[in-house]
Amino acid sequence: MSPITRRKLLASAGVGAAGVGLGAGGYLVGHETAEADDGGGSVPFYGEHQAGIGTPAQDRLHFAAFDLVDGSRAELREMLREWSLAAAEMAGGELIGDVNSERLAPPQDTGETVGLPPSRLTVTIGFGPSLFERQSLGLAGKRPPALRDIPPLPGDELDAENGGGDICVQACSDDPQVAFHAIRNLARIGRGTVAMRWSQLGFGRTSSTSRSQETPRNLMGFKDGTANIRAEDLEAMRRHVWLGDGDGPAWMRGGSYMVTRRIRMLLEVWDRSALGDQEETIGRAKYSGAPLGESDEFDPLDLEAEKDGKPAIPVDAHVRLASASANNGERILRRGYSFTDGVDPRLGELDAGLFFICFQRDPEKQFVAIQRRLGSHDALDEYIKHVGSAVFAVPPGARRGGYVGETLLG
Amino acid sequence: MSPITRRKLLASAGVGAAGVGLGAGGYLVGHETAEADDGGGSVPFYGEHQAGIGTPAQDRLHFAAFDLVDGSRAELREMLREWSLAAAEMAGGELIGDVNSERLAPPQDTGETVGLPPSRLTVTIGFGPSLFERQSLGLAGKRPPALRDIPPLPGDELDAENGGGDICVQACSDDPQVAFHAIRNLARIGRGTVAMRWSQLGFGRTSSTSRSQETPRNLMGFKDGTANIRAEDLEAMRRHVWLGDGDGPAWMRGGSYMVTRRIRMLLEVWDRSALGDQEETIGRAKYSGAPLGESDEFDPLDLEAEKDGKPAIPVDAHVRLASASANNGERILRRGYSFTDGVDPRLGELDAGLFFICFQRDPEKQFVAIQRRLGSHDALDEYIKHVGSAVFAVPPGARRGGYVGETLLG
Repeated sequence: MSPITRRKLLASAGVGAAGVGLGAGGYLVGHETAEADDGGGSVPFYGEHQAGIGTPAQDRLHFAAFDLVDGSRAELREMLREWSLAAAEMAGGELIGDVNSERLAPPQDTGETVGLPPSRLTVTIGFGPSLFERQSLGLAGKRPPALRDIPPLPGDELDAENGGGDICVQACSDDPQVAFHAIRNLARIGRGTVAMRWSQLGFGRTSSTSRSQETPRNLMGFKDGTANIRAEDLEAMRRHVWLGDGDGPAWMRGGSYMVTRRIRMLLEVWDRSALGDQEETIGRAKYSGAPLGESDEFDPLDLEAEKDGKPAIPVDAHVRLASASANNGERILRRGYSFTDGVDPRLGELDAGLFFICFQRDPEKQFVAIQRRLGSHDALDEYIKHVGSAVFAVPPGARRGGYVGETLLG
Repeated sequence: MSPITRRKLLASAGVGAAGVGLGAGGYLVGHETAEADDGGGSVPFYGEHQAGIGTPAQDRLHFAAFDLVDGSRAELREMLREWSLAAAEMAGGELIGDVNSERLAPPQDTGETVGLPPSRLTVTIGFGPSLFERQSLGLAGKRPPALRDIPPLPGDELDAENGGGDICVQACSDDPQVAFHAIRNLARIGRGTVAMRWSQLGFGRTSSTSRSQETPRNLMGFKDGTANIRAEDLEAMRRHVWLGDGDGPAWMRGGSYMVTRRIRMLLEVWDRSALGDQEETIGRAKYSGAPLGESDEFDPLDLEAEKDGKPAIPVDAHVRLASASANNGERILRRGYSFTDGVDPRLGELDAGLFFICFQRDPEKQFVAIQRRLGSHDALDEYIKHVGSAVFAVPPGARRGGYVGETLLG
């Protein structure tokens, strides 16, 4: 297979097609060298960890969860091998497969990214608890003890249609067309083996995962993720995100656990609340992002500070209850996106909010414990509803020539 | 009202908040001058025509249709006045209203674009046929004869939930967060007067409307809109898009008619069809975009050309049936966007396709006549379904101090 970048193809098609015309295939012969320029930035697919976790959060998301429709282990293995190859090509800004396809066969790449740069695409694959219950796969004994359905949590209003799934794919890119293309093509490749269960488009990142990034704002208008783990903090990544030698089965070493929550924001209620109430709900100033009582976004969160004889950061403020110090030092790597999915016909309001994604070493000790506290006491609960939930074991990255999931299925 | 750009506010908040702290308002006193730099590009809201028609198509869309809930003409007028002011501020990269709001009051701007540049935001407002039937408005006599519901068309599979509406707002921007912010804030301002009926997010433009733009690809992987009207072609705009002196009521002079169609693409069927079939369905080469038999995207569409004794461009090819020469010289200005709205639960497939938007002087003679032909004979019909439909009268632009709709209601 020759690597043909999507930009190269475009240049070739303009020139090469001239003397070829209708009906001729193979017009790229002679142009089959990889292009050095990877405009738009490419993130390597292969590596110790899967990309899309420690990668500086891209601007856009397309996420999909799939269920197995045909249960043979060989078929699953073959699909994951094809997915990995395709993901590596797309991450490099190449077309999937061989562009010199017959005119009598369907193109191996659907083509909507022809001419677009790699746009920092990452494809991150995970396995849900239900995958290990598929009898025909015989994987029950390999389920990591830490991979369990997220238990019911206070304040949940879950809609089963937006949760769960045997396998997930998180596609992130700075260009939404590139993220869409990844999900659409993996779904196409997986047809017959998996069927899409649910999907989610995210139009704006709500976390920084690198010191190189500015903190974005969520749809409440507040900076989100100021206290997030940054990938440059290797000690925090090791302690809170990546699985090490003592963390469950060997096939997950170098992996992580992903939790997703579709969090609907009740924006019409939020928009009617006073600026002061909004700030006390979050515990930070709206415009600067500083902790209440401080002046800069990155000033430390002083939970002991008082103002007029009361805590400067209210006892039920979101940042207090979500803080590491309120949670036995536990932290999570957040990597969520804002979404809107039209109008909720029941309420006549925008169906919009935060598609929350986080990574951690142990969902029970980290996300679940934190959310149990938040769901009971957080002042923010008045303005949000958790409507979707899922958890996935994200295996380590693949070496070139291998595939994601090989440590489990190989 | 002082113009405070969103970037200026951010700079001010960092500095000004230091000596002020929790609970103090008015920390922007002394910074209330407009910022000269409009990074990200700003498109003026005021002008002869509304922006968002002749404006080079931005990358992202958020579209919403509203129904009137309280019918007084004075309230509608007041809402449109507030919408116009807010739209002009947002287009300039300013916060809506006065940022020095009381901590005891809700912020006048929801805040999620603080720090973001104008990002070429345009807000385009239109009136549906049903608005003129609202008894309490007394506008029945002012309905332009050309503004009529789109009649049933061959192949329609319309879902009433995704069509119609008394008033529409098309928000386009290069940043989806900026487009979302516009719709969300106009909905907030309009609360009590209008309620949102349906909305649509578009993640990638599928038309060029300026010679400065490259032709984008739609989700079928083909270049879309090669033959589109370009705004620089003033003669074509005058002939096909803008209403002149003889075109219906005086209040629409300088306006246009907008038709929207939610076109679902049956991507799983498309993806299984051979490259040759795809190219003959469209009538162009997939990668170069050239008409079949030609070599360059912008080579003229020669409908008489033959190859092997048959038309080079098949008789049922989309580009042939949509061409001006097949439609008595009629053309439309297309300004559509790709969308995906998750998984269609009935089919287990991606609900994705093209949110088609076009502008014209006469919907019946232009869009309807063209679509009547396409819906009956187009080879593309096998791969698409029209599931949503709406039409709006888009009045002329407003002068500074005026508002969009003033020619109708003033």
